Amino acid sequence: MAALAKEPVVKNDVESTTSYFKHSIYQKLAANVAKDAVEEAITKKLDVKFLLSTSNNTIRLADLGCAVGPNTFTSLQSLIDTIKNKCQCPDFSSMPEFQVYFNDQPSNDFNTLFTSLPVQKEYYAGGVPGSFHGRIFPSNYLHVVQCNYALHWLSNLPEELEDNNSPAWSKGKIHYANAPDEVLKVYARQWAKDFNDFLNARAKEIVPGGLLIVVMPSIPDGMPYSELANGILYNCFSSVLLDMAKRVT
Amino acid sequence: MAALAKEPVVKNDVESTTSYFKHSIYQKLAANVAKDAVEEAITKKLDVKFLLSTSNNTIRLADLGCAVGPNTFTSLQSLIDTIKNKCQCPDFSSMPEFQVYFNDQPSNDFNTLFTSLPVQKEYYAGGVPGSFHGRIFPSNYLHVVQCNYALHWLSNLPEELEDNNSPAWSKGKIHYANAPDEVLKVYARQWAKDFNDFLNARAKEIVPGGLLIVVMPSIPDGMPYSELANGILYNCFSSVLLDMAKRVT
Repeated sequence: MAALAKEPVVKNDVESTTSYFKHSIYQKLAANVAKDAVEEAITKKLDVKFLLSTSNNTIRLADLGCAVGPNTFTSLQSLIDTIKNKCQCPDFSSMPEFQVYFNDQPSNDFNTLFTSLPVQKEYYAGGVPGSFHGRIFPSNYLHVVQCNYALHWLSNLPEELEDNNSPAWSKGKIHYANAPDEVLKVYARQWAKDFNDFLNARAKEIVPGGLLIVVMPSIPDGMPYSELANGILYNCFSSVLLDMAKRVT
Repeated sequence: MAALAKEPVVKNDVESTTSYFKHSIYQKLAANVAKDAVEEAITKKLDVKFLLSTSNNTIRLADLGCAVGPNTFTSLQSLIDTIKNKCQCPDFSSMPEFQVYFNDQPSNDFNTLFTSLPVQKEYYAGGVPGSFHGRIFPSNYLHVVQCNYALHWLSNLPEELEDNNSPAWSKGKIHYANAPDEVLKVYARQWAKDFNDFLNARAKEIVPGGLLIVVMPSIPDGMPYSELANGILYNCFSSVLLDMAKRVT
């Protein structure tokens, strides 16, 4: 489990060679792995007719931690296609309307997101700025919520990691690979609290019978954190950052 | 009635000395003029208890053509305060939740809007990118919709105005003050079509018993367009623009 405090996302134009829009293939692959399981859950478990009976014939979906696209567009369209397939049986007199919410931190580049929306989209789109660790929607409101490759971000950096008098001082590192147990525990405690807050908020926002889809990185039981590819990468980053910091002091 | 095709709004940071955020006092004054009438309409005509009975205790408001603030925040908060006042009588067992949508063209600076949202807001905020001349919300969805000082923008520039073979050619002008009748008619026809589209879309999106508030510039009957302050201003602009264009050709 990677666990780093999320910094405000910088504005990155679709056309920029360094943009997330062009460099999110890893996240796309992760979402694709879960695609079959998600389709099966919608097909077998989501009672669309029941949901529509109390929502004025509208299905409301949200992508939490959506960034700027294009993955958010393709994965949400895939959810809509699966729901529409279910609505083609004679039980349904008309196709429902779809309302789709794109959520991320207020500092996310919503301008890029909104100007990249598919031209022929089959839904009413909205952006919702705010942390998914708290409430961002009214009660009993959403039908299908996905959170793809985003729930590993922490709501904030635990203070102990930056306090050089604490046994959990992380000594300039930005990841817990090869870190002492105290550091690991502080990261784990923060993530557990954040995940609890996330679930409590969704429990209020999602209607009874709704669906919550979480796709996130994980590691096999027993694998040491020092072997994490992400950990090796971030430890390398932190060396580079420390070198850069030394040059300007 | 001013009537110009709306160009994409350029990004304008809150801190910039030329930003709309700092230069929208005229629009604020216009909205304030209508404040008493709006409060009276909500107090006397809006059946909040009836609206809540079919909306899961949530009141949904939208500001169409909201730009980047701060006027949109103050005017929407004022609507919410008036509705909350109505809910303090014993008829209401609990205060409703509020959902507020900020709408403007996809090219609007939603990044500035979202990062300027009031910290202590009492509502769930969302941004909706899209032209208010078409559908942007599901059917029977919104309870109170305002459109302050925005409905004078046209959906697009009628082709005849730019066609030098047409009697309605507007000869490099960007406003209809002092223009021939043919030009006036083309502007008027486009605005009538746009207003019709606006009303048809809202008729589907607003619930029965909902409220539509439109604040817009107008002129007294019989006043010649040549005396319009806006017209004089825009004719001056067009001279400046033509001079600039001549220098680069």
